[in-house]
Amino acid sequence: MSGLLVIVSGPSGAGKGTVLKELFAKRADCVSSVSATTRQPRQGEVDGVNYYFLSPETFEQWVEEDRFIEWVQVFKNRYGTPKEFVVAKQNEGFNVVLEIDVQGGVKVMEKIPDCVSIFLTPPSMSNLEKRLRNRGTESEEQISLRLSEAKRELAARKYYKYTVINDTVERAVEDIISILNAENCLTHRVKQVE
Amino acid sequence: MSGLLVIVSGPSGAGKGTVLKELFAKRADCVSSVSATTRQPRQGEVDGVNYYFLSPETFEQWVEEDRFIEWVQVFKNRYGTPKEFVVAKQNEGFNVVLEIDVQGGVKVMEKIPDCVSIFLTPPSMSNLEKRLRNRGTESEEQISLRLSEAKRELAARKYYKYTVINDTVERAVEDIISILNAENCLTHRVKQVE
Repeated sequence: MSGLLVIVSGPSGAGKGTVLKELFAKRADCVSSVSATTRQPRQGEVDGVNYYFLSPETFEQWVEEDRFIEWVQVFKNRYGTPKEFVVAKQNEGFNVVLEIDVQGGVKVMEKIPDCVSIFLTPPSMSNLEKRLRNRGTESEEQISLRLSEAKRELAARKYYKYTVINDTVERAVEDIISILNAENCLTHRVKQVE
Repeated sequence: MSGLLVIVSGPSGAGKGTVLKELFAKRADCVSSVSATTRQPRQGEVDGVNYYFLSPETFEQWVEEDRFIEWVQVFKNRYGTPKEFVVAKQNEGFNVVLEIDVQGGVKVMEKIPDCVSIFLTPPSMSNLEKRLRNRGTESEEQISLRLSEAKRELAARKYYKYTVINDTVERAVEDIISILNAENCLTHRVKQVE
C-alpha cells in the first residue's frame, strides 16, 4: 500500500518539533520530508538528510520543470518541497510528513487534495504564552510578536482536516497515529475484497 | 464533548458481533444502540436492554411522531432505532454504536450525515466461506445463499466512509478505535482555542 502525504502546521510554540520527533521514534513507517534550499549548509548539515542544497540556478530549473510541490522565497533564499522525494517514499510505503507553515500548507492541499492535513494547536493562548516564555530565548517584544502571529495562524486551522491539541506530547502523538490509521481505513483507500 | 453516532454494517459472517463485543469491553465510552421492536420478548430478554418492546400501536404512533432514525418491517414485526435513546446517550458523551444492515445504514447516513459509517468486511470471500462453514450451523444451501447475499452487501461498502478488514478481531477493534479518535480530531468537531 502506498504511504500517505501528511502535512503538519501550527503556530510557533505549539510543539511541532517535539511531537514529530516522538512520532518518528514510535512509527518506523513515517519519515520526514526533505526540503530543498538555496541557502548555504550550516555546520553539520548533510545534503539529502537535512536539506537538498541546490544552487540558485538548479533551484530555478526545478521550478521551471515543476519539480516542487510548493516553494517559497524567504529574503534571499528559496525553499521548496521536491515532488520526487515525496512520491518515491510514498511508493516505498512510507507516510511522508511535511512540517510547513500555513501558507505552504494551503498550497500543498490545493495541489494534492488527497493529503492528510493536521493543524497542531496549543490547548490555549495562555499555555502558548507560557511555552514561549519557558524557552527563555526571546525578548518580551519577540514574545508578543509571536503571540499575534499565532492568533493569525490559528485562524487558518479551518483549512485543515484535523486539529490536534498538544496538551501532552504523548496524547498528541497518539492522536496523529489514530489519524494515520483511520485515513488508511477510508473506503477509497481500501482494496476491494475478492 | 458530545459522542459520535457510529454505524457498523457488513455481511453475515464478517464478525460484527465479536468485534463490537470486544470494542465495548475495551472502551467504556462506547455503548450499543437499543432498538425498538414489536416482536415478543424471548426468554431472558429485558425491556430497555436488549430491545424496547413496543405494542404495534405504540410503534405506529412513534413512526407518526418521527421518533425513529430509521425503521423497517420484517415479516410481521417492525424494528426501529429510537432517536431519543441515541441523542440522550450522545449528550452524555457516549459514542452510540448501531449495528445495522446496509439498507438501514444508508437510511441513517441520509438522515444523519455527521454519523461515522464503518463497513466491516472479511479479508476475502474464501475466508468468509470458511467462517460460515466453521459455525457448523448451516446447510450447504444456506451457506451458498449467505455467500451470494454477502457479495451483494460488499457492493454497498462504497456508501460507507470507512472499511475495516476483520483479519483479526484485535486489529479490527484497534482500527475502529483509531477511527473514533480521528473523527474526534476532525477540525469541525474541535473547539476553537482561546
